[in-house]
Amino acid sequence: MNAVPPPLRWWGWGDRDTPIPSGLAVLLQDEMGIPLGVHVAPAAREAVTLPPSRLADDALIAQLSAICGAEAVGLDGQSRLVHAAGRSYLDLLRLRSGDIGVAPDGVIWPSSEQQIAAVLRACAAADCAVVPFGGGTSVVGGVTPSRGSHRAVISLDLRRLDRWLAVHPVSRVAVLQAGMTGTQAEAALTHHGLTLGHFPQSCEYATIGGFAATRSAGQASSGYGRFDDLVLGLRMVSPAGEIVVAAHPASAAGPSIRELVLGSEGRLGVITEVTVKVRPWPQQESYEAWSFAHFTEGIHALRAMTQGGVAPDVARLSDHQETRVGMAMASRGGAAETLGRRYLRARGHQEGCLLIAGWDSDALLGGARQAEARAIIRRHRGIALGASPGQSWLRQRFHGPYLRDALLDAGVLVETVETATSWANLARLHDAVASALDEALRDGHTPLVGCHVSHVYPSGASLYFTVLARSGNDPRARWLRAKEAACNAILDNDGTITHHHAVGTDHLPYLEREIGIGGVAALRAVAAQLDPTGIMNPGKLIPDAPAAVASGRRPSRPRAQPGLPGASAARGRPRR
Amino acid sequence: MNAVPPPLRWWGWGDRDTPIPSGLAVLLQDEMGIPLGVHVAPAAREAVTLPPSRLADDALIAQLSAICGAEAVGLDGQSRLVHAAGRSYLDLLRLRSGDIGVAPDGVIWPSSEQQIAAVLRACAAADCAVVPFGGGTSVVGGVTPSRGSHRAVISLDLRRLDRWLAVHPVSRVAVLQAGMTGTQAEAALTHHGLTLGHFPQSCEYATIGGFAATRSAGQASSGYGRFDDLVLGLRMVSPAGEIVVAAHPASAAGPSIRELVLGSEGRLGVITEVTVKVRPWPQQESYEAWSFAHFTEGIHALRAMTQGGVAPDVARLSDHQETRVGMAMASRGGAAETLGRRYLRARGHQEGCLLIAGWDSDALLGGARQAEARAIIRRHRGIALGASPGQSWLRQRFHGPYLRDALLDAGVLVETVETATSWANLARLHDAVASALDEALRDGHTPLVGCHVSHVYPSGASLYFTVLARSGNDPRARWLRAKEAACNAILDNDGTITHHHAVGTDHLPYLEREIGIGGVAALRAVAAQLDPTGIMNPGKLIPDAPAAVASGRRPSRPRAQPGLPGASAARGRPRR
Repeated sequence: MNAVPPPLRWWGWGDRDTPIPSGLAVLLQDEMGIPLGVHVAPAAREAVTLPPSRLADDALIAQLSAICGAEAVGLDGQSRLVHAAGRSYLDLLRLRSGDIGVAPDGVIWPSSEQQIAAVLRACAAADCAVVPFGGGTSVVGGVTPSRGSHRAVISLDLRRLDRWLAVHPVSRVAVLQAGMTGTQAEAALTHHGLTLGHFPQSCEYATIGGFAATRSAGQASSGYGRFDDLVLGLRMVSPAGEIVVAAHPASAAGPSIRELVLGSEGRLGVITEVTVKVRPWPQQESYEAWSFAHFTEGIHALRAMTQGGVAPDVARLSDHQETRVGMAMASRGGAAETLGRRYLRARGHQEGCLLIAGWDSDALLGGARQAEARAIIRRHRGIALGASPGQSWLRQRFHGPYLRDALLDAGVLVETVETATSWANLARLHDAVASALDEALRDGHTPLVGCHVSHVYPSGASLYFTVLARSGNDPRARWLRAKEAACNAILDNDGTITHHHAVGTDHLPYLEREIGIGGVAALRAVAAQLDPTGIMNPGKLIPDAPAAVASGRRPSRPRAQPGLPGASAARGRPRR
Repeated sequence: MNAVPPPLRWWGWGDRDTPIPSGLAVLLQDEMGIPLGVHVAPAAREAVTLPPSRLADDALIAQLSAICGAEAVGLDGQSRLVHAAGRSYLDLLRLRSGDIGVAPDGVIWPSSEQQIAAVLRACAAADCAVVPFGGGTSVVGGVTPSRGSHRAVISLDLRRLDRWLAVHPVSRVAVLQAGMTGTQAEAALTHHGLTLGHFPQSCEYATIGGFAATRSAGQASSGYGRFDDLVLGLRMVSPAGEIVVAAHPASAAGPSIRELVLGSEGRLGVITEVTVKVRPWPQQESYEAWSFAHFTEGIHALRAMTQGGVAPDVARLSDHQETRVGMAMASRGGAAETLGRRYLRARGHQEGCLLIAGWDSDALLGGARQAEARAIIRRHRGIALGASPGQSWLRQRFHGPYLRDALLDAGVLVETVETATSWANLARLHDAVASALDEALRDGHTPLVGCHVSHVYPSGASLYFTVLARSGNDPRARWLRAKEAACNAILDNDGTITHHHAVGTDHLPYLEREIGIGGVAALRAVAAQLDPTGIMNPGKLIPDAPAAVASGRRPSRPRAQPGLPGASAARGRPRR
């Protein structure tokens, strides 16, 4: 990772083209009839059309300039364009078309908490909505500039809050400003021999505040924890005042205000500062790969390792389809690779499931933990594939979003869906969601729907699906149908509507099925208290009353716990 | 533990007298002038006076009887008496005096969630406050029956919701009704070879719902986690409807509704059902004791073990004073004991600090973990005292509240105070709180203020103080002064106002200093949404607007993180 990656290009990811690996291109052609060599370029920058700004010549602009300085306010096309969308498939389609449709009426770059408070006061008085903007990497519509019922909307970019404020090695705590990117935070901590250990695929661009606001989960979450587990304290500026959560190691002082700010997605205020747990930089890292004949054997092995307290820090188990796509991408056709495949086939793993296991966080018991984990994997008939696939994964760990641009250039529909459920329910949920996506996207050709388990917990794990399909005549409508089918499959099969992508606009119609009418009402009450005029990120996270429900279904009451096959029947039913 | 312990006697704990160990009695006499053999008995049951019930002949009683059955409604003196108080020192003083002062106007024992919902509707319509009542073991006034601004108040006893509903061994999850006691839950889980591993001193009487509502922490929390860590899902009935939190292993679907219900102390509704993580019953248990010359050496050892991932499941480090009291209590004056003391004295531990380390939860790496932990303890000059003090602690682990009755009989003031802070701040906070208690209770004699660290986290730990002092002429006023001094010392020195005792009435005046004006306002908004007429447990947890502040101080803004000595200075201050 570079300490400061180049800015995201306005229509995609990073600053460079990444070719589609030849093996994957062949697979796309052979199985889905996607022709090789097609290149559908995004619109030229000159051809991009933005809606006019509602704030041109508006008194609010002078006020914002007085608060933050004239150079910190942008009404120009480029500023508005790079704050016009996140990075979901639908966002990319919109950007690449050149017809941007929705853009903020202006952008502001405050440099302090005090400035942010003043900006929110000015915007509330001027009836202008505010969209907090970190790295702009949301894949659920979280930074789409909606003005809701307000007169206008601005994006509030946090990039100037990019300092670390304190590092406490004894207590293993660091205080970081919200606008630091993941990469910047790691660079700062490395000077102290420390790491946050939070590496989502977006971490070159996504920010500390964004991680907190969306409950991000990194690739090493099995060892380091989700970002919400890493947060001890934080500060948030709301239109009605500030929220300050002290960084106690634990407290019983009522409901958790920290857990109310985590996941708030800009609806309750602007997170300005986060106090996080950190760790010493690992003394050694070791990545290795294994193959299981069946996905369920891999799941059983992951469960045994996790519940036995010896899960790897990075644990990533691909199903058959994802393993096949991954092998196609890695394919170089050499003799060693052919031999390797023959060996696996002879052992019954002709359609194996790849497990990447990474060990990097535990100086004291690392060796013992790894030995126990290997014994468990072998008991579940895992076959060692050595270090090189693991090293290869490590090199490519932030590669996905770069490759996506090339796939869109080639006319491929590419998107991800994620969820989590209990161990007992994991295979059932996997099959249901994969089938739903497959059925929704079948069009004479078969889409490639791969999945991996990447975040493990004592009671269950996440599922992360990647979809590759023909984009068809109306890619947007096609994906919306598939997404709706996947979301309903998730909720009908006791998954959570999102494990780490957050709610944004895309999951908003499903929130009431997830947390119930009472849960939504509680969130609305908090939002009304902290943001009385409703200027904060309207249209995200919390449905307006009455809740909009996807696909005309009536919301069903969430169940107290997932239906878990193999559970003991209750000895006595309660006297209800 | 018995599966079903006998009911709490109305004026104290358990059902039996527990004598004061002779060594402790001598210490109390020698150092505090508390005479041996005094016995101040509680008032006779016949002499107890209760205020008249405001619900005698009230229409609400007929409604409640129609909902739950006539046998489930109690207006009699005994029912009202045993729901009149929790089990703090001040509660015990009030009960023992026989002048009860405050009691519920009635008691109801519903047996289902539906009945609870109907009871809340009836009470809201009749302007009657409702105090959810589990084991009645609150030590912060959490179950004191206050009617607030309402016409009357009833206690809603959850003891009839005492069933387990499901056990899922694969996902290691159990669904328990809120009225089960800790002991009942363990008895049910033992049938499946499982344990919750939650053993607070109150667990013979305290309930699953109470653990959740107060963020309880058990003696094995270092290994098993606090109760809030164990909760995956729950159900709560509020006057405005129900809250249902599905038991996903993790989710990014917005702010955590689970963490809003945890710690809600009956102010938002009645918790009826909790889905918890469980574990296999440990294959082996091992308890051992160590001595450190200095408290700070013990703290450093605990920190190294915790941050290295090898903390014992039970870790309990006593300071000099608590060690001395503990030795007095265990004193039998035999030759072996004398020899042991001589050995410690020769090694410079004449005033040693005792560490109890218990290992019971980790089948896979238990041995390796224990070996690493021992090496760390020895590096911090810990001296092994063998297994017997640990076994002795294990036998006595639920003993404290029983002994307390005997101490009150002897005219001793006995109470506890708890907090938590970062590792770097732990010794400073310890000294500040111990000094505050000592100064407030000094009266020509010196109180015994002991403390132990009992809950450890990567970033910090808890402190648990036990105070023994002369009760004086006005024990209540005397303790209120000491408690206020301790709370101010905690907040002035970056501790949390409560690590696991919750807020109740006793910490309510300090909540705004802990979570800020914004945090309190957010909680008030949620309460107003879920309980529009404010009947739920009035006067607890959330201060009425405007906030009452203890001791005439103005609330100061909480700080974003504790002031941590030894921190690196920020490289660049933010541009504020």
